[in-house]
Amino acid sequence: MQLPRPSGVVTLLTDFGALDPYAGVMRGAVLRAMPRANVVDLCHEVPPQDVALGALFLGSAVRRFPSGTVHVAVVDPGVGTARRVLCACAAECFWLAPDNGLLSGVLAAAGESEVRAVDTNALGLVPSGRTFHGRDVFAPLAGWLANGRYGFQALGPRCTDPHRAEDLREGPPRVIHVDRYGNLITNLGAGAIAGAAAVRIGGTRVPVAATYGDTRKDALVAVVNSYELVEIAANLGNAACVLDVGVGAPVAVDPTP
Amino acid sequence: MQLPRPSGVVTLLTDFGALDPYAGVMRGAVLRAMPRANVVDLCHEVPPQDVALGALFLGSAVRRFPSGTVHVAVVDPGVGTARRVLCACAAECFWLAPDNGLLSGVLAAAGESEVRAVDTNALGLVPSGRTFHGRDVFAPLAGWLANGRYGFQALGPRCTDPHRAEDLREGPPRVIHVDRYGNLITNLGAGAIAGAAAVRIGGTRVPVAATYGDTRKDALVAVVNSYELVEIAANLGNAACVLDVGVGAPVAVDPTP
Amino acid sequence: MQLPRPSGVVTLLTDFGALDPYAGVMRGAVLRAMPRANVVDLCHEVPPQDVALGALFLGSAVRRFPSGTVHVAVVDPGVGTARRVLCACAAECFWLAPDNGLLSGVLAAAGESEVRAVDTNALGLVPSGRTFHGRDVFAPLAGWLANGRYGFQALGPRCTDPHRAEDLREGPPRVIHVDRYGNLITNLGAGAIAGAAAVRIGGTRVPVAATYGDTRKDALVAVVNSYELVEIAANLGNAACVLDVGVGAPVAVDPTP
Repeated sequence: MQLPRPSGVVTLLTDFGALDPYAGVMRGAVLRAMPRANVVDLCHEVPPQDVALGALFLGSAVRRFPSGTVHVAVVDPGVGTARRVLCACAAECFWLAPDNGLLSGVLAAAGESEVRAVDTNALGLVPSGRTFHGRDVFAPLAGWLANGRYGFQALGPRCTDPHRAEDLREGPPRVIHVDRYGNLITNLGAGAIAGAAAVRIGGTRVPVAATYGDTRKDALVAVVNSYELVEIAANLGNAACVLDVGVGAPVAVDPTP
Repeated sequence: MQLPRPSGVVTLLTDFGALDPYAGVMRGAVLRAMPRANVVDLCHEVPPQDVALGALFLGSAVRRFPSGTVHVAVVDPGVGTARRVLCACAAECFWLAPDNGLLSGVLAAAGESEVRAVDTNALGLVPSGRTFHGRDVFAPLAGWLANGRYGFQALGPRCTDPHRAEDLREGPPRVIHVDRYGNLITNLGAGAIAGAAAVRIGGTRVPVAATYGDTRKDALVAVVNSYELVEIAANLGNAACVLDVGVGAPVAVDPTP
Repeated sequence: MQLPRPSGVVTLLTDFGALDPYAGVMRGAVLRAMPRANVVDLCHEVPPQDVALGALFLGSAVRRFPSGTVHVAVVDPGVGTARRVLCACAAECFWLAPDNGLLSGVLAAAGESEVRAVDTNALGLVPSGRTFHGRDVFAPLAGWLANGRYGFQALGPRCTDPHRAEDLREGPPRVIHVDRYGNLITNLGAGAIAGAAAVRIGGTRVPVAATYGDTRKDALVAVVNSYELVEIAANLGNAACVLDVGVGAPVAVDPTP
């Protein structure tokens, strides 16, 4: 496959949160490898160890960054165990993550892809401990890919069996995430509501609209959101509070025309 | 008016919060237009849809960034509706925002300014959806302004009637924001307490001081803060907790000499 | 001592939090001095005025960023009072902070170091107020160091008596910080558990392990973490909740072999 030229951009997605200097120190480890790297955050508030949500978030970056971006994702409950370190080349970018399914959303969205199992020993990556491979393994790797010290194919052998995480987009129609606005993100794809007038959640009928402001204040709407998923929102309000529902709540397309 | 030369710096102010990858994906959209853009965050924790507070926060960036910085502000409850997209040139910087009053603080603080209504169609901006114009409209625009693909005057016709938001600096003297320290930020300007010895809030007399440490631990002080507004703080403590007051609480300059 | 060449990287550690534009405006002040500075966040969620924890966090950056990085730390309850502004050169980086002990962790970890008391008047730093020296003093200084406008030795006279903060690594064995995972970070060094099989906390015996995943789900482990301190964690869980303990809880090395 055609490999993109590194852009110098490195993104970080983790479950490190903002309360500690973990993400900061990881930025430092990228910059030690490449002081001029353009390091930006994708998100650091994946709930602790929530690989499935991390995979959804990471997938939202597909085709949203420059060609040759190095994306680093660390939601890594198996840090320091025998789990592999993977690097995918997909959708003109590189994607580094532990082999626990975190790449699932990217591989599903990207079309053609190639995955390598990183041979950390051969690359001279000797972690100083077994608890923070974001800093000791993933960040230096990202810097080396971004500055061209190692090419993708030099990272290690091809991997044809990456671990798959639970795919939140699959399974029964339900709320899979509540965002900071209280919008209820479902796993119904845009196609599921093509031609439909409404969806149903917890006994409530929610009309389909094109965007939030297409209704009166506090009224509920179902829109196709930026994940290309159906989302239930309250215009200028908080749908999760209005409906008193959360992750897991069943949703259905309303059959009434 | 004299247009500044782009500095390559792009700032982001939104109500996206940190829990989701929205701000991250928006950074990506800036970088797709300009991979070497220096993208920095002004603030992403404007409360959802709080345009008035967003306008206050955005105003605090006036003359605090390099000449030619492109500031992007997205607190946009009307996303996907007919509301216009504006770009102001003011105080040697560019300011992109939806036409909902978010630019009010900047236009009030900046002195001379010029505003353009961005002709998104003419610029080839075809959003892939109607719910995330931060990613699909504002971020690419910011990148194009920052890398010189479009000059300010090419963005669209002059706009002489930008929407004005509620100006938190106006209206009755009161607390307009509580910051992370529990400091009570009021809409009293520095001039209001010139020569005064104290302010009053909720029955409590709070002496005017030059800075927080000018009193004993936990004692209340009224200082002129970095917004050039009067702020009531507890030295090494939390004034909002000490006084049990919040946004909207009336304040007054104490008449006693 | 040998002075490093500036790398163009500037890091920020503060207690400003994310709710306000304070950190954003501080980034702007660095960029006004050096528009191409590579400004990255170390952490902004140091609890308000918690200098001791800030010193621990800042110390975690030692040898984790490129040579010549300018680190700026602002946890500064004495802002606007007579407290000095310090700059240390240590471990091949520069460290700017108020003279309140915030540099303690760096100076303890770095080995050889030299500290200067910054002569802000001589450098023409005239703050526009007395409440936000992060913006008005520290950030411009960082930009000037990073772009070479001033060398380290031109900042001011040598300082041989920097203020020392409480060193969280000292004192009785206890929990000194709970991180976002609920991991209990203690002040026991790695050496304290060499050869030990377990530690004790609140009546519970916690076996020593090499990493989190070396036990079953929800089981407690004691590991050496990325601070090189003993940390009590629950595999895939929250140790602080499981044990119902927090900062200050006593810990001990279990004498049983």
